[in-house]
Amino acid sequence: MKKEIPLDHANRLLNHGPVVLISSEQDGKPNAMAAAWQTPLSIHPLLVGVSIAPKRYSHELITLSREFVVNVPPRTLYRQVHGCGTVSGRDQDKFTMFGLTAVPGRRVRAPLIEECIGHLECVVANTVTVGDHTFFVGEVLSASVEEGTFHDIWEVAQPKGQTLHHLGGSFYTYPEELIDAGS
Amino acid sequence: MKKEIPLDHANRLLNHGPVVLISSEQDGKPNAMAAAWQTPLSIHPLLVGVSIAPKRYSHELITLSREFVVNVPPRTLYRQVHGCGTVSGRDQDKFTMFGLTAVPGRRVRAPLIEECIGHLECVVANTVTVGDHTFFVGEVLSASVEEGTFHDIWEVAQPKGQTLHHLGGSFYTYPEELIDAGS
Repeated sequence: MKKEIPLDHANRLLNHGPVVLISSEQDGKPNAMAAAWQTPLSIHPLLVGVSIAPKRYSHELITLSREFVVNVPPRTLYRQVHGCGTVSGRDQDKFTMFGLTAVPGRRVRAPLIEECIGHLECVVANTVTVGDHTFFVGEVLSASVEEGTFHDIWEVAQPKGQTLHHLGGSFYTYPEELIDAGS
Repeated sequence: MKKEIPLDHANRLLNHGPVVLISSEQDGKPNAMAAAWQTPLSIHPLLVGVSIAPKRYSHELITLSREFVVNVPPRTLYRQVHGCGTVSGRDQDKFTMFGLTAVPGRRVRAPLIEECIGHLECVVANTVTVGDHTFFVGEVLSASVEEGTFHDIWEVAQPKGQTLHHLGGSFYTYPEELIDAGS
């Protein structure tokens, strides 16, 4: 079950740097790409940014539709995430290919990916050319999480709250210990 | 011992989303701030971005000096990192306060933080206002790592190659398992 959360701390879905699946849609055709190069940017309004190479199919879809969803996968989804990062949606329907389920968003037409545990629904607020990539700045309109995975911060001490982080190539890692620096 | 690494895969110092210490300097006064909101942006040239609130002292130093260093702390440095994120360098010398050592960079005047295990020396290539923050885009001129911590990817299966990731508030986590999605 997914539940909507207030935007106040929704930046914390991305604060610790997980790899994400960016979903987008144009003319009824959904796509998903893996992206490690993302970060929160602003609290008021809540803005997040993702850097995407112009050759990517998602670059075209987001440029046309002006919307995207940032989906945070659980660590168990690593094969699908890696697959989404190595196949182009121009040639393949990645949702079918990797057994991912597109579900309607609350505020955007781009679909949410049901198998993920966190979602930020965004409209494009700005695009900036950064070297050989484009940085899409998205304003977050709605944030939601899978119940039991996130309570103000990710529940990384529990398997279902463990996110996936891309080290490089085919290598990933995940967090599982909580450190309280205030104690 | 620190060694310089080629820029080809230096984005991988940040690819998995660690919290970093941003060091800067102006008129001989060094400062360090903790930043979770950073990401690689481009391969050629190698660009990285970090989002900083205008009220931060580092915002002023980087705006004036047009340089900064992204330092990747090991997980054991969590108390110092959290301290650097909660005290202002306007009032305190954070290097002295937290027992951090400023060492000269190869290509910039901003100091490297010796206790960290990865370093990206940057000049400011662009600044973009993003809501209530400023996004500083830095071109990486030199990358270096502590020997034994990084071999094309971070050695997260070894304690000394484990980075720190900010969940929110006083809470941090770290990775320690390697997943190979290509196997």
